[in-house]
Amino acid sequence: MSFTLSEIAAALGGDFTGNGKIVLTGAAEPQDAGPNELALAMDPKYADGIAAGQARAALLWEGADWQALGLEGAICMTRGKAAMPLLTRALDPGLGIEPGIHPSAVVDDSAEIGEGAAIGPLVVIGKDVKIGARAQIGAHASVGYGTVIGDDLTLHPGARIAHLCTIGDRFTAQSNSVLGGDGFSFVTLDKESAVESLRGNMAEGERADTVEGSAHWARVHSLGGVVVGDDVELGASSTIDRGTIRATQIGSGTKIDCQVQVGHNAIVGEHVMMCGNVGVSGSAKIGNRVVLGGKVGVSDNIFIGDDVIAGGGTNIYTNVPAGRAVLGSPAVKIETEMAIRRELRRLPRLADTLRELQKTVSKLVDKD
Amino acid sequence: MSFTLSEIAAALGGDFTGNGKIVLTGAAEPQDAGPNELALAMDPKYADGIAAGQARAALLWEGADWQALGLEGAICMTRGKAAMPLLTRALDPGLGIEPGIHPSAVVDDSAEIGEGAAIGPLVVIGKDVKIGARAQIGAHASVGYGTVIGDDLTLHPGARIAHLCTIGDRFTAQSNSVLGGDGFSFVTLDKESAVESLRGNMAEGERADTVEGSAHWARVHSLGGVVVGDDVELGASSTIDRGTIRATQIGSGTKIDCQVQVGHNAIVGEHVMMCGNVGVSGSAKIGNRVVLGGKVGVSDNIFIGDDVIAGGGTNIYTNVPAGRAVLGSPAVKIETEMAIRRELRRLPRLADTLRELQKTVSKLVDKD
Amino acid sequence: MSFTLSEIAAALGGDFTGNGKIVLTGAAEPQDAGPNELALAMDPKYADGIAAGQARAALLWEGADWQALGLEGAICMTRGKAAMPLLTRALDPGLGIEPGIHPSAVVDDSAEIGEGAAIGPLVVIGKDVKIGARAQIGAHASVGYGTVIGDDLTLHPGARIAHLCTIGDRFTAQSNSVLGGDGFSFVTLDKESAVESLRGNMAEGERADTVEGSAHWARVHSLGGVVVGDDVELGASSTIDRGTIRATQIGSGTKIDCQVQVGHNAIVGEHVMMCGNVGVSGSAKIGNRVVLGGKVGVSDNIFIGDDVIAGGGTNIYTNVPAGRAVLGSPAVKIETEMAIRRELRRLPRLADTLRELQKTVSKLVDKD
Repeated sequence: MSFTLSEIAAALGGDFTGNGKIVLTGAAEPQDAGPNELALAMDPKYADGIAAGQARAALLWEGADWQALGLEGAICMTRGKAAMPLLTRALDPGLGIEPGIHPSAVVDDSAEIGEGAAIGPLVVIGKDVKIGARAQIGAHASVGYGTVIGDDLTLHPGARIAHLCTIGDRFTAQSNSVLGGDGFSFVTLDKESAVESLRGNMAEGERADTVEGSAHWARVHSLGGVVVGDDVELGASSTIDRGTIRATQIGSGTKIDCQVQVGHNAIVGEHVMMCGNVGVSGSAKIGNRVVLGGKVGVSDNIFIGDDVIAGGGTNIYTNVPAGRAVLGSPAVKIETEMAIRRELRRLPRLADTLRELQKTVSKLVDKD
Repeated sequence: MSFTLSEIAAALGGDFTGNGKIVLTGAAEPQDAGPNELALAMDPKYADGIAAGQARAALLWEGADWQALGLEGAICMTRGKAAMPLLTRALDPGLGIEPGIHPSAVVDDSAEIGEGAAIGPLVVIGKDVKIGARAQIGAHASVGYGTVIGDDLTLHPGARIAHLCTIGDRFTAQSNSVLGGDGFSFVTLDKESAVESLRGNMAEGERADTVEGSAHWARVHSLGGVVVGDDVELGASSTIDRGTIRATQIGSGTKIDCQVQVGHNAIVGEHVMMCGNVGVSGSAKIGNRVVLGGKVGVSDNIFIGDDVIAGGGTNIYTNVPAGRAVLGSPAVKIETEMAIRRELRRLPRLADTLRELQKTVSKLVDKD
Repeated sequence: MSFTLSEIAAALGGDFTGNGKIVLTGAAEPQDAGPNELALAMDPKYADGIAAGQARAALLWEGADWQALGLEGAICMTRGKAAMPLLTRALDPGLGIEPGIHPSAVVDDSAEIGEGAAIGPLVVIGKDVKIGARAQIGAHASVGYGTVIGDDLTLHPGARIAHLCTIGDRFTAQSNSVLGGDGFSFVTLDKESAVESLRGNMAEGERADTVEGSAHWARVHSLGGVVVGDDVELGASSTIDRGTIRATQIGSGTKIDCQVQVGHNAIVGEHVMMCGNVGVSGSAKIGNRVVLGGKVGVSDNIFIGDDVIAGGGTNIYTNVPAGRAVLGSPAVKIETEMAIRRELRRLPRLADTLRELQKTVSKLVDKD
């Protein structure tokens, strides 16, 4: 795959200067760029890198003097970072799946697959599955019966879409991700479990004095599937459980990183971003444009308002109102947590001070 | 799949009132229920939902007036939640695997598979594997050589059972879960590693003044397998490592959610519940009926007593006696953690108060 | 597989005493050992275990009196633990993959595979892949196009190596691990996202007063692969993302446990150890011989120096200098965190003391 500098400029909706016919086979960081790689140097701090590398062409910051940098051609953009999606999409060689259905794939006769599909080796597509146009399905991926998926699907090798789910356009699932596994839902048949009674008591600010042995767990089957909007991405090894009675929901534009778990019945809004190792418990409701940093945990049955941002490692146990930025375990407003952390570091000294003060006051009282 | 209301009542061990011949094809939340779906309304708060939906039949709370709700028939139960396992099992359409062995599956000639099995496409079953009756094995699942599994096995697509493991009846593994991977066990060949010496010093309340560079890690192979009791469930993408010399053990009735890791040599008791993203380190011992909330971490080589409950996000570094409810990082009694959290939020103010008080006392001392 | 005691002694580079011809088929903990299993008793505390079991031969501590223990033969070693890698490697029956390429595997004609390979059923090897000698590749594993791997590769069932990655010798990937998935990299096209502006403000110690709704996320494709050194191990369900422009890097000798996530562009040094559930964010740089305990989180774009040790559950938000041992959330020096934890437990009492003291001082002031 190769492009000329002028072709890349056109793809980015920008202009090139200098020699537009330089042939480029990829992009690279400035210092690593070879003569046929576009150096990505969208900030003046990369000027030295260009000198160190072998680049003849670069994507530069607005107003850069490409000739002084020793280049033969360049593209200058106001907000270079914004060019990255277009640029990297143009240069991405993709999953390399051959067009058509690989002879080793097991595709049920009743499945309807749109035109332009590339279905790799040993893929399994179940009964009554419907997949839109231009699907790219990597080796060993599987789609369970009755699932309906829109156009421009990308499943990386080993991705698992369970039965009876509904997914919009441009869905991407990374390798070994799982959409539609059974929810983790168990009840005790004969009496309330220790957890149920503890939770009941905690709500009133107390705990059970004696934690009785809980009885055997009986499985509640998951009859709801998962309903996913458009433009959703699911990271490698991430898991979205199906709902119990109604579907678990993931809104359009939501992006989910690797190692993330979303529990059964959760309702996740649009354009949400969940970073790696996030855990969202069952029946949690997450608003639009929420950002959950790495390792954030969300308790079950709580509500996270629109535009909430939770910093990495935050544990959210209770509802969070819209627009709030939270941090810590338990989650509090970010400025509160920052103040707590400042004092925590001084806590041993503070305790010493208090003990000293106690002695001083004690002497004063004695004298008094 | 469809049932009459009277059939469902019989399955639940309850009685129906009204028209027992209403045909039902599924269940739904009251407001979403269509005319052929059983509305699940086990609490009076759902009364409005029934009015809003199109349900003709419902599972209602004890003593509900089904006729006043506009229904044609109903099942009333004292503890409706307890009906969910039976009801959802009856309505679950299952994994949809065809009976018999799919021609694309690779099943070793020496494997013994019980009657009534449904083995899906591209499954791999190794040498000398024994699987009991009525197994349901989804696409791309695999079972390693010499593993012995009881009756009523369910493996979702892509589940991995390694070689030489022993598993009881009614085992369920969700998609892409892994049972029997190698333990994370490495030693340094020439001298103690920095971690080993640090740990030695920490036990005495100190740390190594200088952390020496640790030598190369040499792999200890995992010769023990995993021994699993009856009625165990393993969530999507969860991993249970095999033991080093003896087997890692998972007791009967234990339920494990998604994204959970259980390290090598761990001994997990019966009817334990581990929620999403839990990590149990190697050689930890966990008692019966323990409940670990989401994201709980358990250090290696420690002991968690029977009936312990750990709230979400708790990190357990040391032994926990039986019956205790713990929370926090490090884990303490739940009421201690609640008190700490209350004061933590006030900590910046408390520090200010102390500094003010210090000034006041200082003045008093000066005057004195 | 069986060995004589003298053969095992030779493999361990040690000497045997007594009957070297005892035939052994495995190893076991002393109390569980059968007559043909080598009892592992490298410490005097195991003496009782030997008496309780049926072992005829044992690996014993230096200077042990094997005859008094009732054994017929023994191997005594100064640092028995160091014998474990050799011993367990000798006794490991392995993955049981037949030599050659299983007829059901889909191996591209252009792939070059070294001699002595054992490639299991339903494996997929893509175009232009190069794999060195003696590879062991389990069922359902896959290697994407253009990836180059050294000698002595071991892929457990379902392991996924993506396209265009470079891996050294003796790489082991456990089941369902993923190397080379796309990075989690999204930008907003029209304006700065709420996260970007919040982060900008946090750097100055403040936060945005109003968190504006962020725009839609546009995907930055990952053009860099992953470059992995020699002797690296990747645990079950763990995920290493590919880089954006240059490769994500994992240094030689680094060992990664299960459920670990390493983000795009991260640079991980040599002989690093990452325990279960660790999350390393994108573009983090981790030095040599670093040890990250279970559930440790590392923020993006930070630097962890050589020989750093982070205790379990630690969240690292900022750079850590070489040689430091850290703990807590946020990570601080281990002795600081220990002091904080000691005082935290007393915090409610401390707060009460302060309030009492305040009253006392108030009275003194009134009197004054």
